[in-house]
Amino acid sequence: MIKSTDKTALEALDKRYRIRLINSLNGYKSANLIGTTDQSGNENLALFSSVIHLGSDPPLLGFKMRPLTVPRHTYENIKETGVFTINHVHQDWITKAHACAGKQAKELSEFKDVGLTPEYSQGHKAPYVKESMIKIGLHFVEEHFIKANGTIIIVGQIDEIVMDTDLIDENGDIDFGTAGGVTITGLNHYWRGVKVLSK
Amino acid sequence: MIKSTDKTALEALDKRYRIRLINSLNGYKSANLIGTTDQSGNENLALFSSVIHLGSDPPLLGFKMRPLTVPRHTYENIKETGVFTINHVHQDWITKAHACAGKQAKELSEFKDVGLTPEYSQGHKAPYVKESMIKIGLHFVEEHFIKANGTIIIVGQIDEIVMDTDLIDENGDIDFGTAGGVTITGLNHYWRGVKVLSK
Repeated sequence: MIKSTDKTALEALDKRYRIRLINSLNGYKSANLIGTTDQSGNENLALFSSVIHLGSDPPLLGFKMRPLTVPRHTYENIKETGVFTINHVHQDWITKAHACAGKQAKELSEFKDVGLTPEYSQGHKAPYVKESMIKIGLHFVEEHFIKANGTIIIVGQIDEIVMDTDLIDENGDIDFGTAGGVTITGLNHYWRGVKVLSK
Repeated sequence: MIKSTDKTALEALDKRYRIRLINSLNGYKSANLIGTTDQSGNENLALFSSVIHLGSDPPLLGFKMRPLTVPRHTYENIKETGVFTINHVHQDWITKAHACAGKQAKELSEFKDVGLTPEYSQGHKAPYVKESMIKIGLHFVEEHFIKANGTIIIVGQIDEIVMDTDLIDENGDIDFGTAGGVTITGLNHYWRGVKVLSK
């Protein structure tokens, strides 16, 4: 049944139900692992579904970081080292990627913990995920604090792209049908794409 | 062939090729139409692929607005009226939604121009897209100017959700397989999702 859920009804929803509903509302989201290290080289890997394109010249991507009310290693590491990587999640290792979500304090690097492999390029100091088919190296540019709830938008500039160039067509478009990346809805639903239309 | 494209190589790419490549890089993106009016009630509809979840309590969504170097009716209208709607793009009217992209100065409302229907609820002043199965009414909360390139992050708080509640499962998750929404890659490639895994 088509129904309007207004502000009062939204506030009255069960908290967990509301979290899942609001997390579902913007539809399909990108699925990426962000790789960092601290100053001592300890590696960290975390799952993000909020990476957005901010511009092509200079090449900029942004993502949302949750409030710093608990330790956020990705944030601390980016501020310490100035660099990070964005790595597409692929269909054959969703379970490993998902296991990187929501972890806070721990001894082991998420790489070792979930069974993904850190990989370094000559040109970039932050760790890539070897298993990822599309890897992006960035440096920190600026951050914006969302006053309404304490989340932070991190902006990074792309320094390096590491991928099979056969996946890029003559126009510059990446063929995600072949690249096998996945998309997330809500907190934990993973989908592959089937091309419907190119305009 | 796996290849590292560094900053120098990126800068040397043909401009149109680079725009398409960088727009492809973050993977699958949400596909939404944002509906607004000016103070006189003239309706505007524009396509955005950057809507992200910012928080659930209060319920916040954000999206990227391109630099204000040309008139941006969506931006001006949101600042004038304080409200906007986010409407999921669906598989059976992708062509109409895509025709709302990139239009600037024009006489007709995009609604009339592309053949989509404005619809108003009792609780919200901005126009929804009648044809959309998931409609969200928001008010403007804050904006953040990205210094690196002049883009703007608009933050809105959800006041109303209009949708068939049968599409929401007992946990609060929306079933996008049934809801028929689409996802965008690059500038103009539309995909439907096939569920791979729920964690």
